[in-house]
Amino acid sequence: MLNWDNIFATRSSRMRASEIRELLKLLDQPDIISFAGGIPDPALFPDREFKQAYSNIFDSTAVNSALQYSVSEGYKPLREWLVGEMGKLGIACGLDNVFIVSGSQQGLDYLGKLFLSPNDTALVTLPTYLGALQAFNAYEPAYDQLTPNGNRTPASYQAQAKEAGGKVKFAYLSADFSNPTGESVDLEAREKLIKLADEMDIAIIEDAAYQSLRYDGEAIAPILSLEIAEKGDIDKTRTIYCGSFSKTLAPGLRVGFIVANAPVIRKLVLMKQAADLHSSTINQIAIAEVARKGFDAQVAKIKAAYSKRRDVMLAALAKHMPEGVSWTKPEGGMFVWVTLPKGMDGAKLLAKSIETVKVAFVPGRAFFADGSGENTLRMSFSSSNEEKIEEGIARLGKLIAGEIGGA
Amino acid sequence: MLNWDNIFATRSSRMRASEIRELLKLLDQPDIISFAGGIPDPALFPDREFKQAYSNIFDSTAVNSALQYSVSEGYKPLREWLVGEMGKLGIACGLDNVFIVSGSQQGLDYLGKLFLSPNDTALVTLPTYLGALQAFNAYEPAYDQLTPNGNRTPASYQAQAKEAGGKVKFAYLSADFSNPTGESVDLEAREKLIKLADEMDIAIIEDAAYQSLRYDGEAIAPILSLEIAEKGDIDKTRTIYCGSFSKTLAPGLRVGFIVANAPVIRKLVLMKQAADLHSSTINQIAIAEVARKGFDAQVAKIKAAYSKRRDVMLAALAKHMPEGVSWTKPEGGMFVWVTLPKGMDGAKLLAKSIETVKVAFVPGRAFFADGSGENTLRMSFSSSNEEKIEEGIARLGKLIAGEIGGA
Repeated sequence: MLNWDNIFATRSSRMRASEIRELLKLLDQPDIISFAGGIPDPALFPDREFKQAYSNIFDSTAVNSALQYSVSEGYKPLREWLVGEMGKLGIACGLDNVFIVSGSQQGLDYLGKLFLSPNDTALVTLPTYLGALQAFNAYEPAYDQLTPNGNRTPASYQAQAKEAGGKVKFAYLSADFSNPTGESVDLEAREKLIKLADEMDIAIIEDAAYQSLRYDGEAIAPILSLEIAEKGDIDKTRTIYCGSFSKTLAPGLRVGFIVANAPVIRKLVLMKQAADLHSSTINQIAIAEVARKGFDAQVAKIKAAYSKRRDVMLAALAKHMPEGVSWTKPEGGMFVWVTLPKGMDGAKLLAKSIETVKVAFVPGRAFFADGSGENTLRMSFSSSNEEKIEEGIARLGKLIAGEIGGA
Repeated sequence: MLNWDNIFATRSSRMRASEIRELLKLLDQPDIISFAGGIPDPALFPDREFKQAYSNIFDSTAVNSALQYSVSEGYKPLREWLVGEMGKLGIACGLDNVFIVSGSQQGLDYLGKLFLSPNDTALVTLPTYLGALQAFNAYEPAYDQLTPNGNRTPASYQAQAKEAGGKVKFAYLSADFSNPTGESVDLEAREKLIKLADEMDIAIIEDAAYQSLRYDGEAIAPILSLEIAEKGDIDKTRTIYCGSFSKTLAPGLRVGFIVANAPVIRKLVLMKQAADLHSSTINQIAIAEVARKGFDAQVAKIKAAYSKRRDVMLAALAKHMPEGVSWTKPEGGMFVWVTLPKGMDGAKLLAKSIETVKVAFVPGRAFFADGSGENTLRMSFSSSNEEKIEEGIARLGKLIAGEIGGA
């Protein structure tokens, strides 16, 4: 019998099955109320707009190029539209600063590939986006804790990275309504982070997957926009902005984007050419048309629906959770982050919850690069209706109260 | 000014701009007769069938899942269809042996990522597919020459790999109508290769991108089918079969596939989950529908057109090339491989050819991992009409004759 482990690369040992993947399978069971998936509500997809967009492609001379190979940097009209959108966010940039990827997850994989030699250090928050850890893991990094509001010195980060056998290469964070906590990084912390990155000569990876989904409070300028304001030119900046259409238009087309200085974009384009040539041509054309015709209206529709669900979830948590349980109050995004009393275990609670009250969520530990966070849960409010949110939180609150009482 | 080279990973130095990419830009100039691109003729795309397929998706309940996230292994009905197709080729397999990728280029990238630690050796033919070298380069391998009909011993390969600082991990080849030469590996050489791989305990990567496009001669069994026949079960084999819809249906959707033993497929699925989650859902559904309804008819249509163009190119070469120039006589695929007299340089000829006779092709050296092959050219007959092929070869023959005469 073949033993493949004999010939797999060493990096393959860091590719393991994920809890989230296993959990996604639960969504197919109709009697489960699931707050597990961080996925958009398909009822809000702009399906008529996409139907029209695909139909237009086949009724025009664009059809041949839509089905053909295309350039690695992405479909030009989509990149042009993004230049305009970025301008509205204070990110003054040109076509050479915009690169299309097959979903922002691919952007994270490429950035890991571009920066991380084995044992280099990636700075990540505790907790952080699980998918980022999975993407980076393939390049065998060490992790250290990024505390945007903390006071770790460059020397302290660098000493730890040296001990791990490499150099600090970047700080990764989701600055707005992060997956998993729903919380945002404030303006002062963003400014401090730019200073820290300058001092250490590292990149900042700004994951903006949820940035458009603000329901209340004041918008905070993207880290990249702050750096452009400070340094005068995107090509002098070190922040790499990763955007997505998955939360606003639709994830099934696999279209995301990266906006950054031209030297980094040039390298990423070469990488993509070698890795998968280019993202789907026809899907880029469809996204460009739907975005151009009605991006703002679509985002407004989603925000109206999700903000109500967030309100319902927060109210239900306040009503049904026993003392000792706390949670975040996000101003946008898709997630509320719940902290159980110390000593409780989110993974064990999930097993019991599915069995007894038929409610699913994601245990928080997977989001911690250091394996801590066992008493935390990620709850998504994006894909359940308001009655189910109320009902699910009520059931879960009762279960947790029983667990605390019985402990 | 930032110096990004300070923080890029060491592998980034192997990501360089390619000649092919620069050459693709030439295709936009209408006065150039181009034999450069290895791209399908868009006039042969099944565009009505795709129009119908996308329209059906939006008119059915499939629309929500088509726009939503999906599983990393790929769309099940497409994988089921592939199980049936593989059976016709003697590749008896099940659903667990079939994995969808975003074009077979992505398959090559993933296989490099799965097997190659830095300084491991990949065996490749001289010449080989440039895109494979580009994909593997990111994982910093050494290369050694695979000679399917040769008599290198395992010990000789292993000694050279050890000297390079690693182990031999796989042999990569395009067994049918290869890019760039158009030639196929015969049955005896396939059997020898399986024996060599068994002795060395390495994988075989069988790139089958052109396999469906046979115009005459007898079909040769895929390497994977020979191994299954010998070992009795796909899960006991070491051949990894990489397939593509880019040459048969359309490349712009970015849908390809890998068929292999289940342990390798499981690892690739985990890799994809971390790297880009999954290939475009809507495109996989569209490909499945178009393939199910009329794959064989579409392939027949393409073969009829390309085989005529091959005939015209071979006749034109015989008529117009001066003595001292030789070329392959491919039984399928998209390419003819031309060898100039020793001492002539394909890259210099290209520059002169574009300037003076407005004919483009790909200089062969890029396809050689060892930098040899300077007197070779790759000529594609897939995307030019018959008059242009005759005219382009006539012009090029005159230019080459002049160069030989003037040398």
